[in-house]
Amino acid sequence: MQLLKDRIREHGQNLGGGILKVDGFVNHQVDAVLMDACGKEFAQMFKDIGATKILTAEISGIAPAVFTGKHMNLPVVYARKSKPITMPDQVFLTLAPSHTKGRMVELIVSPEYLAGGERVLIIDDFLASGATILGLARLARTAGAVLVGIGALIEKSFESGRQTLSELGVPIKSLVAVASMDNGEIVFEED
Amino acid sequence: MQLLKDRIREHGQNLGGGILKVDGFVNHQVDAVLMDACGKEFAQMFKDIGATKILTAEISGIAPAVFTGKHMNLPVVYARKSKPITMPDQVFLTLAPSHTKGRMVELIVSPEYLAGGERVLIIDDFLASGATILGLARLARTAGAVLVGIGALIEKSFESGRQTLSELGVPIKSLVAVASMDNGEIVFEED
Repeated sequence: MQLLKDRIREHGQNLGGGILKVDGFVNHQVDAVLMDACGKEFAQMFKDIGATKILTAEISGIAPAVFTGKHMNLPVVYARKSKPITMPDQVFLTLAPSHTKGRMVELIVSPEYLAGGERVLIIDDFLASGATILGLARLARTAGAVLVGIGALIEKSFESGRQTLSELGVPIKSLVAVASMDNGEIVFEED
Repeated sequence: MQLLKDRIREHGQNLGGGILKVDGFVNHQVDAVLMDACGKEFAQMFKDIGATKILTAEISGIAPAVFTGKHMNLPVVYARKSKPITMPDQVFLTLAPSHTKGRMVELIVSPEYLAGGERVLIIDDFLASGATILGLARLARTAGAVLVGIGALIEKSFESGRQTLSELGVPIKSLVAVASMDNGEIVFEED
């Protein structure tokens, strides 16, 4: 997606260690108009998979997921990383390693909002190691739901995420793929 | 706003202790189409205040804020509750009591995205005690920005939030106001 690629080229920062900072338009400050366009793009990509629900992880998956939900007219569930008091005692919980936090984090979904028979589309901001998305896929399977697709704004194709997720056997789409971040550069696929 | 009021009437739950559970359409599962409509309503309410930026707090403020941002064509900054590795060492930080967590939480904004001269509209899911919104207002003031308005999806008018925030001297709008939650009921203003 050219719009997102251009923005990363202008305002993304390579912090080293494979960390791509997009805090100015995705992760801390959100360009809502850009995210709306990204949601529209996902809706087009996934229009034929028969999804009934979108699943993401708090915090930074929320913005791309809710705009996708709006364009697909689907509810969006975001997995919580801590259990709020409004959640029932019995929940779906899995652990996933967080690259940016350097530790395992919990991903928690209430059975009230993820049930057997649902067809789940996972939307997240990054596809890197794939660990968070794999955790979300486990939650969906535990709930008896069927995973039907995976979408990420930005794929770091130099990490092994796509390979890890390929075992799930669903379409995996990213709007922009970064091939390399060596030497302080940000090199996109097909550049 | 009738649409939101109807949804609360159908699917909101009074958990006691003043806690209104709206996890099915705002806080854990998001009705993106409803949030888009709420964002449009806020955009209409605040069209004449000259806002240049929307400020909210992670996590549950993000959905209403980004849709408001889309309709107003404004960037949205969400205050973080922990400092990610992508954030510079020098930040704006304030503490606010969290009713649902029973402790103080940090609200952190990077000076990269909140600067002097900005005209800030705060959007959040709830206006209850007003503590979180007051914390956001402090962050804006510390950054040298000017607060120009406050919007909340749901106001609990039986708490003192509006009174607390009135000292800020800006328009305070809520889409729905709950007057009482006694005896397991949810009673709206003007019902």
